[in-house]
Amino acid sequence: MSEDIKKEEVTEETQASETEEKEQTEAASEETTEKTELEAALEKAEDFENKFLRAHAEMQNIQRRANEERQQLQKYRSQDLAKAILPSLDNLERALAVEGLSDDVKKGLEMVQESLNQALKEEGVEEVAVESFDHNLHMAVQTLPADDEHPADSIAEVFQKGYKLHDRLLRPAMVVVYN
Amino acid sequence: MSEDIKKEEVTEETQASETEEKEQTEAASEETTEKTELEAALEKAEDFENKFLRAHAEMQNIQRRANEERQQLQKYRSQDLAKAILPSLDNLERALAVEGLSDDVKKGLEMVQESLNQALKEEGVEEVAVESFDHNLHMAVQTLPADDEHPADSIAEVFQKGYKLHDRLLRPAMVVVYN
Repeated sequence: MSEDIKKEEVTEETQASETEEKEQTEAASEETTEKTELEAALEKAEDFENKFLRAHAEMQNIQRRANEERQQLQKYRSQDLAKAILPSLDNLERALAVEGLSDDVKKGLEMVQESLNQALKEEGVEEVAVESFDHNLHMAVQTLPADDEHPADSIAEVFQKGYKLHDRLLRPAMVVVYN
Repeated sequence: MSEDIKKEEVTEETQASETEEKEQTEAASEETTEKTELEAALEKAEDFENKFLRAHAEMQNIQRRANEERQQLQKYRSQDLAKAILPSLDNLERALAVEGLSDDVKKGLEMVQESLNQALKEEGVEEVAVESFDHNLHMAVQTLPADDEHPADSIAEVFQKGYKLHDRLLRPAMVVVYN
């Protein structure tokens, strides 16, 4: 009888220790799960933080580029119309060069010329300077041999005026140049 | 400048949430700490996900608005120069109305007029129609009593042409109107 009791006791002890072990194992695996979830959440948070920061930076880039583009568009907005008006100025100059114009007609032509030049000037259009030959601003349609009085690159005649809009050339001046 | 400020804000927010996390961790028992850390991390992830989504949406809005603005700028880019050219057209018309012009001069003036009109047309500038009085497009500088042959709102004379750029009025036509 007492043997049976002892055997039972032993069995109980064994079972108890087995249960304890099992509980510990379960607790450990739970901890790992917790950690993994936490790690994943932290990773996710970092990931979205980076995405947010990138989107934020990109947003500011887009805004900056849009501002720059707007400024460029504003600065050169009159380019096409100004270019298209230049032949009218040429025609006016030719008309004014006709001999025997009445004073009325001459005055009228000059008024048109002045108001066109004024309109263009207000938009940033200027005549190209023709002091000395510059291949960025001038086109040589004819050359003359240079001499002591006419050094190379000096301009003999302007066939057609050149124009620029701010720093941008609308059309080069057509010139006769010594070289 | 605004970039720096926004970045600082972001950093501050991040620091604030980190401090919060730390405080919560210190105050709680270990088991609760695990949970709180996870919760905080998940919250942070959600927070940045929302911030990212908002920044992304805002980015698209900025891009859309910039495109719209660019289109508007392009459409009306010639407005100022075109407006400034209109007096030249008036002067040309007056010069052409002078009697006794030689054929050369007349031809010259007409060429200038034509090329100016062509340049303006290419940029979307059109004369305002003067079929019937429209207070949005015309300015009545004089009125005449309407009768059977001249119903109210019919136009007797155009003193000065009006012009519009696409749908935008550059200047109204000055008219004499029956009423």
